Amino acid sequence: MARSDIRLAILAGGSGTRFWPAGRRSRPKQVLALDGDDPRPLVELTVDRVAPLSTAAPWIVAPADLSKELARHLPHLGKDAYVLEPRPRNTAAAMILTAHVAAQTAPGSTVVALPADHHVRPAGRYRQVLAAMAARAKKSDAIVTLGLKPDHPATGYGYLEIGERLEKRAVGDVYEVKRFVEKPDARRAKRLVSGGRHLWNGGTFAFRPEHLLREAAEHLPEVATPIRAAFEQWGKRGFKAALKKAYDVVPSISVDYGIMERTRHVETLASDVEWDDLGSWDAVARHRKPDADGNRMRGDVTVVDAKDCVVDAGDGHVALLGVEDLIVVRTKDTVLVARRGCGEDVREIVKRLEAEGPEDLLR
Amino acid sequence: MARSDIRLAILAGGSGTRFWPAGRRSRPKQVLALDGDDPRPLVELTVDRVAPLSTAAPWIVAPADLSKELARHLPHLGKDAYVLEPRPRNTAAAMILTAHVAAQTAPGSTVVALPADHHVRPAGRYRQVLAAMAARAKKSDAIVTLGLKPDHPATGYGYLEIGERLEKRAVGDVYEVKRFVEKPDARRAKRLVSGGRHLWNGGTFAFRPEHLLREAAEHLPEVATPIRAAFEQWGKRGFKAALKKAYDVVPSISVDYGIMERTRHVETLASDVEWDDLGSWDAVARHRKPDADGNRMRGDVTVVDAKDCVVDAGDGHVALLGVEDLIVVRTKDTVLVARRGCGEDVREIVKRLEAEGPEDLLR
Repeated sequence: MARSDIRLAILAGGSGTRFWPAGRRSRPKQVLALDGDDPRPLVELTVDRVAPLSTAAPWIVAPADLSKELARHLPHLGKDAYVLEPRPRNTAAAMILTAHVAAQTAPGSTVVALPADHHVRPAGRYRQVLAAMAARAKKSDAIVTLGLKPDHPATGYGYLEIGERLEKRAVGDVYEVKRFVEKPDARRAKRLVSGGRHLWNGGTFAFRPEHLLREAAEHLPEVATPIRAAFEQWGKRGFKAALKKAYDVVPSISVDYGIMERTRHVETLASDVEWDDLGSWDAVARHRKPDADGNRMRGDVTVVDAKDCVVDAGDGHVALLGVEDLIVVRTKDTVLVARRGCGEDVREIVKRLEAEGPEDLLR
Repeated sequence: MARSDIRLAILAGGSGTRFWPAGRRSRPKQVLALDGDDPRPLVELTVDRVAPLSTAAPWIVAPADLSKELARHLPHLGKDAYVLEPRPRNTAAAMILTAHVAAQTAPGSTVVALPADHHVRPAGRYRQVLAAMAARAKKSDAIVTLGLKPDHPATGYGYLEIGERLEKRAVGDVYEVKRFVEKPDARRAKRLVSGGRHLWNGGTFAFRPEHLLREAAEHLPEVATPIRAAFEQWGKRGFKAALKKAYDVVPSISVDYGIMERTRHVETLASDVEWDDLGSWDAVARHRKPDADGNRMRGDVTVVDAKDCVVDAGDGHVALLGVEDLIVVRTKDTVLVARRGCGEDVREIVKRLEAEGPEDLLR
């Protein structure tokens, strides 16, 4: 499949409260350096990783109020690269918007839409996988999702139950998807993984724009109809206002829940690339190189008799003494001290701050 | 004994690295608020606690470079209150200097010299104890130290082995001191406490200036002689320079080690006041009121599922998540995260910073 036929859409609209206090409303996960020991932010790594797949610059799909912060980290992308949403409305709206833009500006193309904030290795193999997904999406009638062969019974990911094998490919076979499974508990995750019929849901999709729009119109008209109406103004002066009006009424719903779980036209490519959605500080820790005592540290840290700690000192300094299994994240205005394994519960701190303040620690 | 016969000397020269990062070279322990939940610094509490014992304002004995910081916390004391040392030279020099000043300015008085940074309760009973020590020192030939009846086998304090009972007093009996015992290990501490012949060494002394100077001249001439020479210039323009010259040559040695352990003219009053030398964050924690989960917090702290933690948030904010038994001390430039019970080892962090930097975290 020709590189000129592919359009890349990088979904960069996440809010990232799970990485508080480094992650803030104005500085979400995708602009933080959370992939291993690489000092570059996730969105920059993602752009660099997938850009070779297409002759066109990737689209950055995000709420307008994040565009400045994103542009700061992507200086080589022009203004045209941004597909800006009037406000955050989750992934269903973002995907439908992207499909319309593709249909208008690149008819006949195949879109590969992927999150800005995942860990994937190795990059070359991953690009082969995305290209294979795009090739499959071009010739089939379906939306093709990235499936990952699980290597442990993860409870932090959604799963895809696979059905019939549809095609053998060098980088992984393509299957029909029978069911989307929400994040399971530990017991269920074990069963899913040992059964051999489930893949992790990589949240990454290849599709022809007209297919996605068809499925959206059928299964999610409350999002599809207002956005389609806005596109009647495409290329005219009124488009921006029309899109704002549409986003005022569309519900916030994920593409998985709103479209993928409802359509039968969904397939998956079962890949074995190394993948992690980096859902919490605990996940981030897994990809950092530990020192001899198992500490995974970034920034200026003084350690006496500490082990297996994850530390981000920010622009300041952190001193550890006699502790183990902690997550310590320091910023100018606060510091989080959490037990490792509690990364998912950082949102409880955020909720508490939302309820009791100080509110400025969230901005 | 008349209040006009007593002179109070508050030894405020400590450096306080054990309270890093709140404690710094420029902001030692005695100017920090470390006594229970009282927001006032230790030196202010100490002055307020003992001032009623004398008609004269207490002397603040400290290195000159701390005088500004001390004065900031003691606005009601005039310049005359300060007995300033040219440089820090430990407690033997400070006590000898104090004794000379007392001999010159208040002949016939009895001096009560006490640390600026201890926890004592209740204040009224404590003053009665100090007054009794002064009365004993006035009539005996000895230096009278504060002994505390131990209520647990502490390893963080020095001990006094008592001999013959010399006098019965309402606030505690007076004994001869047979031996000074350095901080014992846990086993030895148990033996000392169960034997009933040992008291904690409160580091507080009542003495007539001429007695202390006599003992200093006999047992610690390397400190006593240069300082005595400087006092030949007392009241003249050259005194300050002479004292500086003396302090350039006197060794840094504690009064316990340099004088008390060597003289036979030392007695102790066995008191049962509540006392703690607040030697570490662990000690400080003991006197703070815990919340329902055992957390002892000061400043702006958000807690989710944490217990038995000691937190000083400084002017910033600290968030705890799923942790227990930690000491967390945040300042503008750093944060210490230590296991409770490791308070004594904070000096290891300080040593590391001295060796490897950043040096400005110590200033």
